[in-house]
Amino acid sequence: MAIENFLESKNIRLDQQLHFTAEIDKMTSILRRTMLIDGSRRENDAEHSWHIAVMALIFAEYTVEPVDIARAVKMCVVHDLIEIYAGDTFAYDVAGNQYKAERESASADKLFAQLPKEQGTEIRLLWEEFDAMQTPDAKYAACMDRLQPFLHNTLTEGHTWVESGTCRSSVEKRMAIIKDFMPEVYKWVEKNIDNAIEKGWLKA
Amino acid sequence: MAIENFLESKNIRLDQQLHFTAEIDKMTSILRRTMLIDGSRRENDAEHSWHIAVMALIFAEYTVEPVDIARAVKMCVVHDLIEIYAGDTFAYDVAGNQYKAERESASADKLFAQLPKEQGTEIRLLWEEFDAMQTPDAKYAACMDRLQPFLHNTLTEGHTWVESGTCRSSVEKRMAIIKDFMPEVYKWVEKNIDNAIEKGWLKA
Repeated sequence: MAIENFLESKNIRLDQQLHFTAEIDKMTSILRRTMLIDGSRRENDAEHSWHIAVMALIFAEYTVEPVDIARAVKMCVVHDLIEIYAGDTFAYDVAGNQYKAERESASADKLFAQLPKEQGTEIRLLWEEFDAMQTPDAKYAACMDRLQPFLHNTLTEGHTWVESGTCRSSVEKRMAIIKDFMPEVYKWVEKNIDNAIEKGWLKA
Repeated sequence: MAIENFLESKNIRLDQQLHFTAEIDKMTSILRRTMLIDGSRRENDAEHSWHIAVMALIFAEYTVEPVDIARAVKMCVVHDLIEIYAGDTFAYDVAGNQYKAERESASADKLFAQLPKEQGTEIRLLWEEFDAMQTPDAKYAACMDRLQPFLHNTLTEGHTWVESGTCRSSVEKRMAIIKDFMPEVYKWVEKNIDNAIEKGWLKA
């Protein structure tokens, strides 16, 4: 079973691409802290990446600068690939985030080297652009990456906030990109932060 | 818990879009017949959609006509949304496929009406284009949609083929779009069909 039994095509590029395709299936077993909205279990990186990619088709009208939706969708589907070797780092885990950049960079080296060079470079650049959060497309993708778990939290009684004892200022910091780049959406975020405090899901 | 507790923004469009975002999280509980490559469980529609979207970034060099990768990626992320109400229909289930079109069209009516009109129409058109498999972008997305479970089957000892007693001609019919549109990739597919017959995973 599994990749050891892969039957080669003898086209080296194609074999690399098929191997890579099999390798990234591991995203389905990288669990995030976020619960699915039905509360049944934690979501995984593949599900999360898909979810924010669809969101990117929908929310572009609220950005303060124009964005290229198709590029943002591409970023969304690849933005967490490096977690295949680096693991998911919970947004509100201070210790875990300290060496996150080094861990993720090493993971990117290992992962993208498995593709034909120019393709590995192209996807790595998309991830780096996302991660740097400087371009409009990256800011928009980052907003989706933050809005999605926020929505899940509001619909699962603040699940990850409660579990981790998160406070208001941490969430506000995490949501700052939405405040700056999608202020109309942030009004809704803020209302939900107030509600979460009131309900005791978030510490004041 | 869940959507009943959704806190409205008072911006009707935004509320619709956030509701839709929550609704499509149901893709995570629509199970396909395909096993994950690690053999641990069946994959779901969200995972599958994500997986083929990333694949669409990688395999475009093999198409017989040029494709717009970004459009294909968009199609990949939305192509199974209608299964939220229609359910997944196994590719090799003859009876299930008889009324598939009606079921999926009714599901599309219900689902896309939940978005602001022009957005619902835009995503529905992407799905319809995918489903009709006439344009190069749709053909390419369809190839990814067929190559991914095929790869999974080859790496999980023909799991869904064995389980359903599938025969060679059914798989060849399903893979015909790859034969036509990505002949270089089909060489590898054909080799694996031969291997599956030899191993007893597929009926001759």
